[in-house]
This record gives sequence, structure tokens and C-alpha cells, in this order.
Amino acid sequence: MTPTCENPYAAGAAYLDGRYMPVGEARIPVTDWGYRRSDVTYDVVGVWDGAFFRLDDHLRRFRRSMEALHMRPAESDAEIRAVLERIVALSGLRRAYVAMDCLRGAPPPGALRHPAFGRAYLSCYAVPWVSVASEEMATRGMHLMIPKVRRIPPESFDPRVKNFHWGDLTEGMFEARDAGADFAILLDGEGHVTEGAGFNVFSVTGGVVATPARGALEGVTRLSVMELCAELGLPLEVRDIPAEEFRAADEIFACTTAGGIMPAARIDGRIMGNDRPGPISTRLRDRFWQKRAEGWHATPVDYAAHAAVAEGGAG
Amino acid sequence: MTPTCENPYAAGAAYLDGRYMPVGEARIPVTDWGYRRSDVTYDVVGVWDGAFFRLDDHLRRFRRSMEALHMRPAESDAEIRAVLERIVALSGLRRAYVAMDCLRGAPPPGALRHPAFGRAYLSCYAVPWVSVASEEMATRGMHLMIPKVRRIPPESFDPRVKNFHWGDLTEGMFEARDAGADFAILLDGEGHVTEGAGFNVFSVTGGVVATPARGALEGVTRLSVMELCAELGLPLEVRDIPAEEFRAADEIFACTTAGGIMPAARIDGRIMGNDRPGPISTRLRDRFWQKRAEGWHATPVDYAAHAAVAEGGAG
Repeated sequence: MTPTCENPYAAGAAYLDGRYMPVGEARIPVTDWGYRRSDVTYDVVGVWDGAFFRLDDHLRRFRRSMEALHMRPAESDAEIRAVLERIVALSGLRRAYVAMDCLRGAPPPGALRHPAFGRAYLSCYAVPWVSVASEEMATRGMHLMIPKVRRIPPESFDPRVKNFHWGDLTEGMFEARDAGADFAILLDGEGHVTEGAGFNVFSVTGGVVATPARGALEGVTRLSVMELCAELGLPLEVRDIPAEEFRAADEIFACTTAGGIMPAARIDGRIMGNDRPGPISTRLRDRFWQKRAEGWHATPVDYAAHAAVAEGGAG
Repeated sequence: MTPTCENPYAAGAAYLDGRYMPVGEARIPVTDWGYRRSDVTYDVVGVWDGAFFRLDDHLRRFRRSMEALHMRPAESDAEIRAVLERIVALSGLRRAYVAMDCLRGAPPPGALRHPAFGRAYLSCYAVPWVSVASEEMATRGMHLMIPKVRRIPPESFDPRVKNFHWGDLTEGMFEARDAGADFAILLDGEGHVTEGAGFNVFSVTGGVVATPARGALEGVTRLSVMELCAELGLPLEVRDIPAEEFRAADEIFACTTAGGIMPAARIDGRIMGNDRPGPISTRLRDRFWQKRAEGWHATPVDYAAHAAVAEGGAG
């Protein structure tokens, strides 16, 4: 199935609490606690050239996140995997951004207003692949800045449980815009680097690659970078990175499902190297996409198996 | 209009992005950032015996919150006031919980994925009044506990901007349940008392009432308690309250729109007084409801003016 005007799923396909539908029809009640209390966890897996990237890693993390939030949706991991494959196949997209959410409804009338009484259910969708960085930013190297707002600390919400508590990251995006930068990198309360809005960060200084040990999501693309460093013989340190060290780095790059490895060219107005992506960042990025093209950690989507599926049909 | 089986709004009435509908039909896209990034602020005003309580205070705070999040919905304060009155009138409810949200949509396709490009819109609803505490808890006095999870600090998200970043509060509710308590009161990173899930807290020690100076919402009911303390000649301190002092208090009470003033009887297993609401807490609660019955800060709802409104009609 290819995306055509005739395919109602061409703009994206969704699965909401047991039913399949075009993404534009996927809506949640304004009274559900997944929205009203951001009582929700999620994950995002990419599809590139017709194949999922590291699908098992995403499914494993998603399950861990749900358990941390005391959520048990009806679907098993195998069923979630089938749902994701089916929404991608319905959309016909060869390159897709595939989100899976598990959110809590409101407790039924008469029950105690406690999350233990709210049912957890799934909301998933596949839409055309989007990158957090524009083509221009990716080519020239991103312009980063460190905002005043601090990242929500692990003592309040474990950042390894992927979540929608983005108020700090959103405020950082406004601070970045005011400063003429593309993206904000938030510090924790101790002044150490954490992450940006949906991406992990790495610094490179004297040939050594470093990434924060805590206060950030344990990203799947971050894990891929670690594997690439090992493969390329690049020394890697997972540790606290003070803001001053970060600002003085030779190179900085970000990484995320929605964008891969994204080198930076500036931080807080300071130009790194030649005001373009640095050599080690570029080497990692190129190797990343080369391996992706070779099928690294790829799980092909069986588009044909889902071609005849009817709207709202059972899984 | 009284709530009958014939009234489609009897279970609650909503206003979503310009349209009126039964609350059960009010749903938001799963792709909107108000959900996906919890990029939303809200407020809740109570209706008691056919009148709003402190409506202007809630509208003023709601506007301040929207401005803090760089949100400008289409509706003016006067229009929001009319929307709220109309949904209450449509529902016919004499006692209602009335929520107003301002949330951000997703930037349109092709725009930069920055919140500055997402449109802010309103979602409001009126449903039958609910109390955060059950009748039993209110009568015997709430059993409180202090959980391990810490409140999201003001450096990450300003708690005076009423928000859905409830992951810490939700985790606290699970810790409370495990401990056999009704509610959790969260500390900040310095070990000072902040607030609970949707309510402010006060301690009473040696006849002096105290409430946290920072790290908590500047609640409208909290303001009412301050006014009552002044009226009753009770000394009030707004300052940091260390956990040890809180645990050793003579009395503790909580306050919120959805419950008024709610005395506690236990904290971390310790019984306060006679294991029931303390005398000063009770005095404040009784005076609160006495004044409410007398029309304190009340704005009557004009039910008749909205009786003939058609579904989906203009404001």
C-alpha cells in the first residue's frame, strides 16, 4: 500500500484503546488523567526505508516505563508490536515517526479519586517522519544555548521514564528563541548538563566523547552512539558534565529518534571549530546512517500482510 | 434548567475551541502539544448553591498563567466569564466543578516545531461538584504522609502557574496508598513542605497558623484562609516549614476549591490531638462555609439567560 489520496490513513494511522483510525480522528477525553495530570508515558520508534530501528529496545523501555507508573494496559508486548506494525502498514509510510503512549483515564464516578482506580490504555500513531531539526540546522550545525530554566530533577520525576512533563523544556525553547538560538540544553540544579527537548547531548573535548550520567533519558539513539564509539575506538565517558566544560567543548552533538545524530556549530554564541559540524560528530553521524542503510538493528515492516485490513478491525 | 434525563448536558457541559457540547464529547487530538508536552495551564472555580466563588480571582490567575506560558487564546476575560457561566447554566448544576484549560495545539505541517507556532485554545467544562476528600475522610480527619518523591522545584516549573505536571504528585499518591494514608504532602529539595495533589496545606502550632512561602500554588482558597485568619484574629505566618516542624504540629489542614478547608487527624502515623479535626482547623472550616452560605465572594449564575441556548451556538 502506497500513500495516495484514496488511502484515508495517508496522513497517518492511529490505534486508540483497541480501535484503528486515521490519525486525525484520534482524540482523548479532556477529563482523562493522561492529559489532566500528565499521567502518561510514551516512546517513539522510527521507521526508515520500511524498517523499524531497534524496535525491541523501544518496546522494552516502554514496558519498563509503564511499570514504573503502575500501568498495565490490556496489550502484551507482542500485541503492541503488532499494533505498531499495523499502523505503519495502514499508513503505507516507508519513513515514519511512530509514537506509543500509555495513559490513564479518570477513575469512574463513585470511585476514590486515586490513580489506582484509573484504567490505563494505549494510544499509538504513525505519521510521516519528522526531524526535530530543520534541514538548514542539520547542514550548518545547530546553534545551542543554556537557558535559565532548570531540568526537572530525578527526585521529582525519573527522566528515564519517558514523559510529557515538558514545561521546563518548552520554557527553554522560548528562551532559545529569544536568544536567537535553535535549541536549549538544560542544566540540573547542580549546574550539570542534562538534555534538550527530546534529545540527548554529547560533548567532544580532546578526542574524548562524554555524555551526562544522570538527569536525562537513557535514549535508544544515545545507546547507538555508545556502540558506534566502541566500534570506532573513540573513548567515551558517561559522567557529570559541568556547564563551563560543555561551553568550552571542541564539539557538541545531539541525538534522537527524530533526527539521528545532529552536530552543533555554536553554543551560547561561541563558535566551535569552523562554525560547522565538527569532524568526530560528522564521522559518527555518517557512520550511523551508513549502518542504518546496511540494515543495522532493522526490523522490516510487512506492509503486504496488513494491506487488506478494514477500518476498526480487530488486531 | 434542572438536570433531567432529557438534558444532554446533565452529566456536564463543555466548551472546546469555540463550540459547546456535552462533556462526554469533549476530546482533544492526541497530537496536540497541550497533551503531548503538557503545554497547558488551567484553573478551577467552584459553583456552590448556584453561585461562583471568587470568579474574578480565578479569571485573573488564569490570565496570568496563560501569559507566563506565552499563550493568547481568542477569548477575552469577559468572554471566558461568559463561557463559564453558560456551561454551568447548560448543565443546570447548582453545585459544580468548573475547569478552564488553555492548551497549545501542534505547529502546522511545514512550520518549525517550536511552541511559538502552536495555536493556544480553550477547553472548559462544568461537571457535578467533586471533593478531593471523601465524606469519611472529611469527617474523621485526613490521614497524611510525607513521601520520598520531591515536588518539582520552582526553578523547573513555577508552581504559581497552575499546571498538569503531576507526575510527582501522582507518585506521592501511590506512596500514600502503600502507607495506608489518604494523601501525600510533598517536600521540596531542601526538606520544606510544599503542597499536596491539588491542595495547599497549613500547620497550626501554639495557636499560630503557618503555610509555605514558596514551592506551592498561590491558591484562591488559601487566600480565603488568610482572610479568615485576619478576621478571626489568628496569627498567620507565610514562611518555610521544615518537615520536622510539620510532623510535630498541633493541627494540620488542607484547602482547595474542590473541598474547601479539610482538617487532618494524622501525619506519618502520628495522631494529632484526639485523632479528629483540631479546634482551630474546625473553626476555620465552619466559618468558611458559614460565610459561603452568606454569599461571601459569590457571583450568582444567571441560569435563565442561557436556558434557550442551542448546541454549538455562538457565545
